[in-house]
Amino acid sequence: MSTHSAQPAVTVLGLGPMGRALAGAFLDAGTPTTVWNRTPGRDRELVARGAAGAGSAEEAAAASGLVVVCVVDYDAVDSVLRRDAVAGALKGRTVVNLTADTPGRARDTAAWAAEHGVRYLDGAIMTPTTTIGTPHAVFLHSGPEGLYREHLPVLEALGGVHTHLGEEIGRAAAHDIALLDVFWTSMAGYAHALAMARAEGVSPRELAPFARGIAEILPPIFEEIAEEAANGVFPGDGNPITSAASSMAHIVHASEAHGIDASVMRAVEGLTRRAIGLGHGADGFGRVADLLSRR
Amino acid sequence: MSTHSAQPAVTVLGLGPMGRALAGAFLDAGTPTTVWNRTPGRDRELVARGAAGAGSAEEAAAASGLVVVCVVDYDAVDSVLRRDAVAGALKGRTVVNLTADTPGRARDTAAWAAEHGVRYLDGAIMTPTTTIGTPHAVFLHSGPEGLYREHLPVLEALGGVHTHLGEEIGRAAAHDIALLDVFWTSMAGYAHALAMARAEGVSPRELAPFARGIAEILPPIFEEIAEEAANGVFPGDGNPITSAASSMAHIVHASEAHGIDASVMRAVEGLTRRAIGLGHGADGFGRVADLLSRR
Repeated sequence: MSTHSAQPAVTVLGLGPMGRALAGAFLDAGTPTTVWNRTPGRDRELVARGAAGAGSAEEAAAASGLVVVCVVDYDAVDSVLRRDAVAGALKGRTVVNLTADTPGRARDTAAWAAEHGVRYLDGAIMTPTTTIGTPHAVFLHSGPEGLYREHLPVLEALGGVHTHLGEEIGRAAAHDIALLDVFWTSMAGYAHALAMARAEGVSPRELAPFARGIAEILPPIFEEIAEEAANGVFPGDGNPITSAASSMAHIVHASEAHGIDASVMRAVEGLTRRAIGLGHGADGFGRVADLLSRR
Repeated sequence: MSTHSAQPAVTVLGLGPMGRALAGAFLDAGTPTTVWNRTPGRDRELVARGAAGAGSAEEAAAASGLVVVCVVDYDAVDSVLRRDAVAGALKGRTVVNLTADTPGRARDTAAWAAEHGVRYLDGAIMTPTTTIGTPHAVFLHSGPEGLYREHLPVLEALGGVHTHLGEEIGRAAAHDIALLDVFWTSMAGYAHALAMARAEGVSPRELAPFARGIAEILPPIFEEIAEEAANGVFPGDGNPITSAASSMAHIVHASEAHGIDASVMRAVEGLTRRAIGLGHGADGFGRVADLLSRR
C-alpha cells in the first residue's frame, strides 16, 4: 500500500469500448498508463491523452506492476496471455482480469497464473462504459484479499464502488453471470413488450414510462424473493404461481396472435407450469428459483 | 360528477385477493359497497367491515350504478356476466372491468356490453394488492372518456394514479400484457440467477443487493431503448449485440454445466443470434425489439 511514494503504473490490455474507458479513467487520475490492443490503431486517442502505446502484449505487460485485462471473453484472454513471451513478462506482476466469462474459466485462468508465477485477481464490471471513472461504476473482485488490498488504491481511479467478494477466484464471475442473467432476460422481456405494444398501436414512447414503473417495483420484490429463497418458504398469498401462469398464457397468446415470436415467454411459462404440476400452484413465484436449484 | 350530493354506491364482483383489496379500499373511503364472489364465504371479512354481501351476481349488479369486476380472466368474466339475469341487471349501469386478459378479449367484452346496453370501461391494475388504497397503486383505463370522467371520483377511493389511455377499449389490456411481459420475464431471469448463484456457492442474500442494483439501472435504459425504437436507430457503441450474445452464451453454458434448465436464456440468445445473423451485430440490443415487430 505504498502508493504515496511513487505513482504506481498500470497497463491495460484490450482497448474495446470498456478497455478504452478503463484506460481513460487511469489517465484522468494521473496514473502512468500503458495500453495495447491486438488490432492496432485503437490506442490513438489514449496516446494523445498521455498513455504509452506498446508495440506488443509482452512489452505492455513488462511496463507496469499491475496489468488490467479487459477483452471480449476468456478465449481472447488465453490468446493474449498464454504465450511464453507474455507469461514471462507477467512473472511476479499482478493481473486483474476484468473480462466477463464463466466462473470455471476464471478458475482455469487462476490455475494458469499460479503455474507461471503470475499474481492473479479476477473481477467483473457491472455497469456500462459511461459509468467508468464516475461514482456510478460497480466493480466486483475475487481472489487473494491481500493482493486486492495492495492494488485497490490504483483500481479506485476507475471510480465507483469496489467490492471484494472473497478469496475463491470464481466468485466475481459467478455474481457477474447471475446478474447478467437478470439484466439480459429483463431486456429481452422489454424488447418483446415493445414489439407487442406496437402491434396493438401503443408506441414505444407511450409504453416507456409505464415500463420504467415496472422496473422500479422490482428491487423490493427481488429482496423479498431472496428472503423466501433463503428460508425455503414461498408464500403465495396475493399472487400465487397459478395467477402468474395465467398472465403468461395471455402474453403468449396475444404475441402469437400478432405473429410475434413468443419463445422467451413460452420458456418462462414452461418453468411456471412445471412448478404448478409439481404441486406448488398456491406458492409464490420464488418457488421457481427453488425448483431450478434442485437436481 | 355529482358525487358531492349523495355517495354513489359500488359493487365488486370477484373476491380473490385483488377483489378483496379493491372492496376494502372502497369501504375505507366510506363508499357504500356490495360484494359477491362465485365461491361463497369470501365476503365474510368485508361484510364485517360494512359491505353488503349479495346472494347472487344479479343481486350484486342491481345494487350499484358502478360495477367493478375483478376475476381471474375473461373466461371467468364471461361466466359471471353473460347470463340473462346479470345482463338484465347491468343494463344502463357501468361495468369497470379490472380483470387482466388480452386486448382481444377486452374488445369482445365491450361488444357484448354494447349489445346489452351496458356502459363499459376496461382497466388494468399494474401494482400488487398491498398497494391498493395507497398512493403506490397504478390503474390504467380505456374506453369512453366521458364515462371514465363520470366514475373517476368513485374509483379514486382505490388510491394511486389513474390514467386514461384512450377511447380504444383494448389499450389498457395492451399496456397490461406488455408490462406483465416485462415483469414476468424479469422475474424468471431473477429466479434463474438465484439458482445459478446458489450452484456457485453464492447465497440468495448475497446476490440480492447486486440484483437490486441491476433492477435500478433498468429504468433509464428502458427510456433509451424506447427512444431508439421510436427513431428506428439502434447505436451499438459501447454495447453491441455481439457482446450481449457472448454474455448470454456464458450464462447458458454455466447454467447447463450445473444441470440447471437454461430454456429462458436459450430463447433470449436465440433472438439475439438471429439479430446478428440478419446483419445487425454492431447495433444495440434495441434492434431485437425492432426485429420482433417485423413480419
